[in-house]
Amino acid sequence: MFRVDLNADLGESFGAYKIGCDAEVLEQVTSANVACGWHAGDPVVLNKTLAMAKEKGVCVGAHPGYPDLMGFGRRDMKLTPDEEYAYTLYQLGAFAAFAKKNGLEIQHLKAHGAMYNTAGKDINLALAICKAVKDFDPEIILLGLSGSKLIEAAQELGLKAASEIFADRAYEEDGSLVNRKKPGAMIEDEEEAIARVVRMIKEGKVTAITGRDIPVKADSICVHGDGPKALAFTSRIRQKLGEEGIALAPFHTFVS
Amino acid sequence: MFRVDLNADLGESFGAYKIGCDAEVLEQVTSANVACGWHAGDPVVLNKTLAMAKEKGVCVGAHPGYPDLMGFGRRDMKLTPDEEYAYTLYQLGAFAAFAKKNGLEIQHLKAHGAMYNTAGKDINLALAICKAVKDFDPEIILLGLSGSKLIEAAQELGLKAASEIFADRAYEEDGSLVNRKKPGAMIEDEEEAIARVVRMIKEGKVTAITGRDIPVKADSICVHGDGPKALAFTSRIRQKLGEEGIALAPFHTFVS
Amino acid sequence: MFRVDLNADLGESFGAYKIGCDAEVLEQVTSANVACGWHAGDPVVLNKTLAMAKEKGVCVGAHPGYPDLMGFGRRDMKLTPDEEYAYTLYQLGAFAAFAKKNGLEIQHLKAHGAMYNTAGKDINLALAICKAVKDFDPEIILLGLSGSKLIEAAQELGLKAASEIFADRAYEEDGSLVNRKKPGAMIEDEEEAIARVVRMIKEGKVTAITGRDIPVKADSICVHGDGPKALAFTSRIRQKLGEEGIALAPFHTFVS
Amino acid sequence: MFRVDLNADLGESFGAYKIGCDAEVLEQVTSANVACGWHAGDPVVLNKTLAMAKEKGVCVGAHPGYPDLMGFGRRDMKLTPDEEYAYTLYQLGAFAAFAKKNGLEIQHLKAHGAMYNTAGKDINLALAICKAVKDFDPEIILLGLSGSKLIEAAQELGLKAASEIFADRAYEEDGSLVNRKKPGAMIEDEEEAIARVVRMIKEGKVTAITGRDIPVKADSICVHGDGPKALAFTSRIRQKLGEEGIALAPFHTFVS
Repeated sequence: MFRVDLNADLGESFGAYKIGCDAEVLEQVTSANVACGWHAGDPVVLNKTLAMAKEKGVCVGAHPGYPDLMGFGRRDMKLTPDEEYAYTLYQLGAFAAFAKKNGLEIQHLKAHGAMYNTAGKDINLALAICKAVKDFDPEIILLGLSGSKLIEAAQELGLKAASEIFADRAYEEDGSLVNRKKPGAMIEDEEEAIARVVRMIKEGKVTAITGRDIPVKADSICVHGDGPKALAFTSRIRQKLGEEGIALAPFHTFVS
Repeated sequence: MFRVDLNADLGESFGAYKIGCDAEVLEQVTSANVACGWHAGDPVVLNKTLAMAKEKGVCVGAHPGYPDLMGFGRRDMKLTPDEEYAYTLYQLGAFAAFAKKNGLEIQHLKAHGAMYNTAGKDINLALAICKAVKDFDPEIILLGLSGSKLIEAAQELGLKAASEIFADRAYEEDGSLVNRKKPGAMIEDEEEAIARVVRMIKEGKVTAITGRDIPVKADSICVHGDGPKALAFTSRIRQKLGEEGIALAPFHTFVS
Repeated sequence: MFRVDLNADLGESFGAYKIGCDAEVLEQVTSANVACGWHAGDPVVLNKTLAMAKEKGVCVGAHPGYPDLMGFGRRDMKLTPDEEYAYTLYQLGAFAAFAKKNGLEIQHLKAHGAMYNTAGKDINLALAICKAVKDFDPEIILLGLSGSKLIEAAQELGLKAASEIFADRAYEEDGSLVNRKKPGAMIEDEEEAIARVVRMIKEGKVTAITGRDIPVKADSICVHGDGPKALAFTSRIRQKLGEEGIALAPFHTFVS
Repeated sequence: MFRVDLNADLGESFGAYKIGCDAEVLEQVTSANVACGWHAGDPVVLNKTLAMAKEKGVCVGAHPGYPDLMGFGRRDMKLTPDEEYAYTLYQLGAFAAFAKKNGLEIQHLKAHGAMYNTAGKDINLALAICKAVKDFDPEIILLGLSGSKLIEAAQELGLKAASEIFADRAYEEDGSLVNRKKPGAMIEDEEEAIARVVRMIKEGKVTAITGRDIPVKADSICVHGDGPKALAFTSRIRQKLGEEGIALAPFHTFVS
C-alpha cells in the first residue's frame, strides 16, 4: 500500500504582519513546518500556531531559517558550518520550548528557503544542520529534498530522514529543482503536476526537464498555504491521492 | 554557617562585538547568567560561553532580555504579559538547547536589565516570566531582586526562588534599588559596600537611603565583569567573605 | 472658507509582508505619512510608495518610529532625548533620499505610534523630534496631535506645525486621546464621528468624554487604510466634507 | 609630485558595544568611511563620529553595508540590484542627514565588506550602488578597489572614482585581492608591505601572487584602526610616505 505525507510552512506571521491561511492549511496537511522567529514568525505567533496544530492533530517540525527577516530567509547568505550549526540549534531549542508547552512531540526539522537550498547542495552545511538536530534529539526526523545533501548528511549521522518532492516544480537530471528563473521551472498545468506526483509516489520516478527519467523518493509532498488558489490545488492533490489509493499519513509513521 | 552565591552576566558579546571578561569572571563566580541573543549574545557566543562555564564548573542560568539590542535591553519597553511570557519561553528554550549540548543543567533564570526592573515592580509581568519558567521546567530556580514582585510571583507559582542583593547600590525603604539618576544611588566607597554585603548576609538587614533598616534576603550577590576594576572589586568581596566565614556556593545547593 | 487635510500612514509593508491598501488610500488622502524602515517599511517599499505618491500627486511626509518592528512601533520604549533626536534624524535622512529620487518635496514629519503618543506628552522628547526636523530642513512642517507637546515644541523652535484630529477617537478634557483600553475610547457611531469632525473644523471645538467642550485645531484628519471598512469610512468623510463646503487640501497650503 | 589618501572604517560601535580606536585613527587618516547603521554603527554613534571627524578636519564618506549586524556585513548575501540600489540609497540618505547636521560635505561612498567585494566583481551590483550615489548627489566620489567593477561602473555612469589599494594584501593577476583563506594572502612582512605601497603609488604597479607585475591605481590606501598594532603600522606607512616625498591629501583634491 502507498503512503505519503503532505507538509506546508506555517507560523510565518510576524508582529502586526499576517501571512498565510494557517487555520485552513492545518485542515489539509499531515505535517506542519513552523517558523522559528528568524526568517519569519515571532514567539507569540509560534505559540499560537503550535496550539492550533495541537488542536487539529497535525504533526509539527521546526522550520529554522537565515537571520534575514527582510528577505524572508530566501536570499543566500554565506554562513560557516559553525554558524549554521549554532543558528539551527538555537531555533530548534526555541521551537522545542513551545512544542513542549503545547503538549506536542517534535516530528521533524526542515530548513527554510535559502538555508534549505544551500545545504541541499553543500554537504558541510547539511552536516552542520543534521549535527544540531542529532545533538538536540536524535529521534527528530530530517525533512529534506529527495536526493539532496541534506538526506545524505542525515543518513551519515544516523538520523531518520524524510524525502520531499514538489508538485509544481521541474527537476534537473541530478534531482535538484530547476531554478525558478529558468523557463519551464514551474509545472503550470495542474493535471500534469498531479500526475507527476502520483508517479513519483508509485514508481519512484519523475521526468527531468531534459526528458530523462530520474529516481525520486516521495515521503512527503510540499504544498503551499498562501492563498485560495494554493488551498484549492492542495485539495485536488488530496482528492487524486484518494482516488489512486494512496493514504495520507504523517511521515514519522513510515520513514526510518 | 553562612553561605552565599556570586552571580554575573556573561555571554554578552555579539558577532564581531566583544564585551566583558568572561574567562576571568568565570574564575570568580558560582553562577553565570548567560545572554540569550535578544538584548545581547548570539548563538555562536552562547555555545562558547556555556562550553567555558562547563569547563570551569560554574552553574548557569538563562538571562533573557527585551528585543532591543541597540539599547542592550536596558530601556523600558511596554510589553503585555502574553509577550513577556512568550519572549521568556523563547529565549529559555534556545538557551536550554545549548545547555544540553554542553552537558549542563539549567540552574536558574534571571531576567535582564529593564525586563528585570520592570517585572520586579509589576506582578503581572513577574507572573508571566515565572509561568514561562514553570511551563518549561519547574525545577529551574527564579533569581530576582530580594523582596521584589519576581520573588513573590515565583513563590505564588511554587517555583524555587533565589534572592539577589547588590553591593554597589543604595536601597529605597521598600527594598527597591534607588534609581541611578538620584544622588546617593551608588555606594561609591568599597569598604562600605563590602560591609553592607556582610551585614545583609549575616543579619538580613541593610540601611536604606532614608537611614532606616530594612530586611533583605541575600542568596546571591550580583557582581560585574566588564573590566579590571570590577574584577578587582569582586576579588575583594570574595576575600572578605572568606574572612567572615561566609562560604561561597551556587544557590541551588541551599535555596528552596 | 474652510479647508482641511486628510492624512494616512503608508508604506508599512516589509519584505514579503504586505500591509495596507496603499494604492486605494492614495486616491483619498491629501497627505501620506510614509514609514521609514524602523517600525515598518523597508528601502524597497519606501521607494515604491513614494513613486506611487508622486504619480498620484499626494504630498508626503516622513513617518519615523521606534526601533521595534516586532511591536510595529506601538509599544512604548523609554528613549533619551539624544536617542529620540538621532533616531528621528536618521529616518528623516533616509526618507529624504527617496523623496529626492522620486522628485518629491518633503511636506512634513509625523512620528508614529508610541513615539507620537509619548512625545505628545513629554516636551523634552517633542523638542528632540522637532530639533531633528529643524536641523535637517526648517521648512518641513511638524504634524502632531492638536494641543499636544509636539505642537508646542514645534512652535517653540519656530517650525510650522499642523494640528491633527481623530474622527474615531474620544478626547480627554486636556485634549489628549482617551486610552483605547477605557470604555468609550472609540466613537463607534460613524454619523456621530463625522458630525464631530465637521464641528472640530467649523467651530474648533469637540465634546470631551467628560461632556465638556474643549478647543481643538483641525488642520488634518487622520484616516486609516488597512481595509475596505476604513476606506469606506474615509469616503463618507470626504463626501460629508464636500456637502459642508469644506475643501480638501494638503496642509502646507494653509498652515503657518 | 606624488599624492595619496589614507582611508579607514570608522563609527562601527553599536549601542553598548564599542569597537575601534576612532579618535586615534582620525589623527592619521585623510578620509573616513563611516558606518551607516546596518552592518555596524547606530544613529547616536554616527552623529558622534561625524562630530569628531569635523573637529579633526577629516573628510568623510558613507560606508553602507549589508543588513547583517550579526555578521558585521562580512558574509555574502545574494541581493538583487534593486535591493542593492535601495539599501545603498537608504544608508546614504541617513548618513547625509548627520553630515549636514555636523557641517560636513560628503566626499565619497565606499561599500563595506561583502558588499564591497561582491559588487567589485558583479557589474550589475556595482551599477546599482553607483546609480544610488548618482541619484543622490553626482558630486560624491565612489571609492572602490583599483581595477574592480565598482570603478568601472562609476566611470560608466559619469561619477568620479577613487581607486583603493591594500598594503597588507596579496593580489591576483586580475587585480582582485587573494582570498584570505589562501596561503600568501596576507603580506606579513611590514617592510615589504610598505615597499609595495610606495611602488604602487610611484610606478602604478604591484607584483601579483603569480610573480607577474600588474597595473594598479593608488588614490587611497586602506588602513585599519582596530588596535595598537594597526595604528603603529599606519604610522610607519605615513613616515615612509613622507620620506619618499609622497604627500598625503584627501582624494577629492586630486581624483577626477
